[in-house]
Amino acid sequence: MASAPTAYVVSQGEELLTGLTLDTNAWFLCRSLTEMGLVVRGVITAGDRLEEIEGALLRATTGADVVVCTGGLGPTTDDLTSEAAARAFGRPLVHDDEAMAQVQARYDAVGRAMAPSNRKQASMPTGAALLVNRQGTAPGFSIDVGQGRLYCLPGVPSEMKSMFAEIVSPDVRAFVAIDPPLRHTFRVMGQGESQLQGLLGDVPERFPGVTLGFRAQMPENHVKLVAEPATPGWDDAVALVRERLGRDCFTEDPTEELAAVIGRLLLARGHTLATAESCTGGWVAHLIVSVPGSSAWFERGWVTYSNRSKREEVGVPAAVLEEHGAVSQETARAMADGARAAAGADWGVSVTGVAGPDGGSPDKPVGTVWVAIAGPTGTRDRQLQLGARDRTMNRRFSTWLALEMLRRQLLRTPVPEAPQPGPETVP
Amino acid sequence: MASAPTAYVVSQGEELLTGLTLDTNAWFLCRSLTEMGLVVRGVITAGDRLEEIEGALLRATTGADVVVCTGGLGPTTDDLTSEAAARAFGRPLVHDDEAMAQVQARYDAVGRAMAPSNRKQASMPTGAALLVNRQGTAPGFSIDVGQGRLYCLPGVPSEMKSMFAEIVSPDVRAFVAIDPPLRHTFRVMGQGESQLQGLLGDVPERFPGVTLGFRAQMPENHVKLVAEPATPGWDDAVALVRERLGRDCFTEDPTEELAAVIGRLLLARGHTLATAESCTGGWVAHLIVSVPGSSAWFERGWVTYSNRSKREEVGVPAAVLEEHGAVSQETARAMADGARAAAGADWGVSVTGVAGPDGGSPDKPVGTVWVAIAGPTGTRDRQLQLGARDRTMNRRFSTWLALEMLRRQLLRTPVPEAPQPGPETVP
Repeated sequence: MASAPTAYVVSQGEELLTGLTLDTNAWFLCRSLTEMGLVVRGVITAGDRLEEIEGALLRATTGADVVVCTGGLGPTTDDLTSEAAARAFGRPLVHDDEAMAQVQARYDAVGRAMAPSNRKQASMPTGAALLVNRQGTAPGFSIDVGQGRLYCLPGVPSEMKSMFAEIVSPDVRAFVAIDPPLRHTFRVMGQGESQLQGLLGDVPERFPGVTLGFRAQMPENHVKLVAEPATPGWDDAVALVRERLGRDCFTEDPTEELAAVIGRLLLARGHTLATAESCTGGWVAHLIVSVPGSSAWFERGWVTYSNRSKREEVGVPAAVLEEHGAVSQETARAMADGARAAAGADWGVSVTGVAGPDGGSPDKPVGTVWVAIAGPTGTRDRQLQLGARDRTMNRRFSTWLALEMLRRQLLRTPVPEAPQPGPETVP
Repeated sequence: MASAPTAYVVSQGEELLTGLTLDTNAWFLCRSLTEMGLVVRGVITAGDRLEEIEGALLRATTGADVVVCTGGLGPTTDDLTSEAAARAFGRPLVHDDEAMAQVQARYDAVGRAMAPSNRKQASMPTGAALLVNRQGTAPGFSIDVGQGRLYCLPGVPSEMKSMFAEIVSPDVRAFVAIDPPLRHTFRVMGQGESQLQGLLGDVPERFPGVTLGFRAQMPENHVKLVAEPATPGWDDAVALVRERLGRDCFTEDPTEELAAVIGRLLLARGHTLATAESCTGGWVAHLIVSVPGSSAWFERGWVTYSNRSKREEVGVPAAVLEEHGAVSQETARAMADGARAAAGADWGVSVTGVAGPDGGSPDKPVGTVWVAIAGPTGTRDRQLQLGARDRTMNRRFSTWLALEMLRRQLLRTPVPEAPQPGPETVP
């Protein structure tokens, strides 16, 4: 890809250098620019010192076709990106009426008075083009430097991402000639990276020019194939990986989450779902409700955190809790059955476990988790031993593995010829 | 901060620039170096091109006392850090017998034959000091450059972290005099960045040497004060900011989450909590359960997503749903009251709203959310108009603002002289 246009990313913010914030903006930009077909040459992170930001902008714009800088466009005195760009490229700051009007409009929209400090946000380097921020007050700008173009976007991730998608991406496509590479992503549950390497490691040898990459996003894994445009055998390579992964691949859409896949499977069957969670504490339901339109298939959920709530809400018998404990196969099964019955849903999912850091015992150490799935053809359960990971990791793994277990059960459940109507739809 | 030693971080790896991997190594190093009292001046990420790595090492070692580089020490042809360092600092590569013995020992330990390519891992720049890697095959090295020191560590996070803790951290402490800067963080809800600038903008003028920084982590904001060690007036500056922020600051511990603060307030009062969520779909409960030990104060939660579940689980009268709708003041209040009563808890929190992207109407557009808090002295509610943000942002804001509203009510509730015992404790 010798001819591919190049890019550089600059992240600005003291909180990145003190490690308070993980720089997911640079990650997003590297991924997005790469997917567009640019070759990212580097990332520089600068703090809140003017000369550092200026140096980073100068370095990044040397030889790159596209530079995207995030952060430092806010109203406060430690927001210095505009000034740094003005100094780096000899373009003094000027007040931009259109930018000012945009900042004012954002305040009007939320019914608040604009603070005097916001005036600063309308200052831009001479000759800069305004980039409208529809979600926040900080406008962005772009300037042409040499034969490249620098885009300065705000650091708030949601604002940055939507401005990148709506403005920067189409502008870059118009500005540089890109012949994007071939890419295919498989999202996988149930196989670790070294297992996937063993399963798929021969693919690049069999299809010269096709590269194989992995990304662990625990407990998911993403398998990525990449090749230059029009590489021979591309379709066969994709088909081979698809065949080898089988049901372990839950989607080939890189943006589709596991909960959304479950929604598709439920909708196709006209089925509904209820959840009863203990250690995951609502995380399963949260992922479900994050899917737009989930009211068509998600009925209700319980966070039965206390033993009393397990009895009262989903009917776990007191004797079961007494004899086997809250973290047990019997309790998990009773929770799933109870959730399904109480909600009048087709499926019930339950999770109960010892998330840690405390609460473990010799026979039920931290990381002991039970998942159960109650469905039209019965109830299945599975014990997880998640080891000595921390509370968040234990809860995360439990959440994802409960959803995955539900997906496997749904795949075994036939799709009716005429699906049932869903339940009442609420916003 | 002229007297604090400075650091620079270099991350090496093509997978970082293509966005395949999120760079948590740089994050770890920034955090660790900052905690040790160094000021991190920047991070550079370089790919697998020799000249880029060489340039990054040269830039990073210019003026920094400590440089930590990760990645590029493996056996394959795209592992180029040793060669880049050799070229950057004019120290030709030499074979190191001790390094070779270490690589060999690792292979012996796992009972595998060493591949010829591993011989490369024993090549180091002339005059480098070997850094032993007890967990993997790639040895690290350090070299003195000018008045600073460069540490090159492998990119595998677990190996890098343990080598940093065991070798780099003590070596740095012996090598540079560290007098850590003064830092204080206030985590704030209820004030935007420009409001905070207006409220606190005069602090750096009143206390020369004290710098003021902000970080928007919507809907939270973090206010940070930083100064050189022993800056006069530091305590007064902290006290002034504390006084001005008042109850908008929910914690001065940078690592304490809002849900954990609520847990503290509930525990002090011997009170318990229940939740009933619609559009937030369990996110409130999920944040609560993410706090270790929350079983002492969190009783249970409902995700009453369907209208039927709002009636059946938390007793919202059918007439209320019919007359006012699921997203209404009346429904929110009935949900909070019902959750409190059904759980036998002291507090009930409810959220119901139109998260989007669909489901809005002229009188209840997307972003219309009602929150209610039922407590020992009555029930309060609040309507939010979150504007045209996306589903995730609407749900995120609703979740945080519900917790914040609960916190405000708790602050108005006196702490008893002898707190009640909490409920049964489950793992």
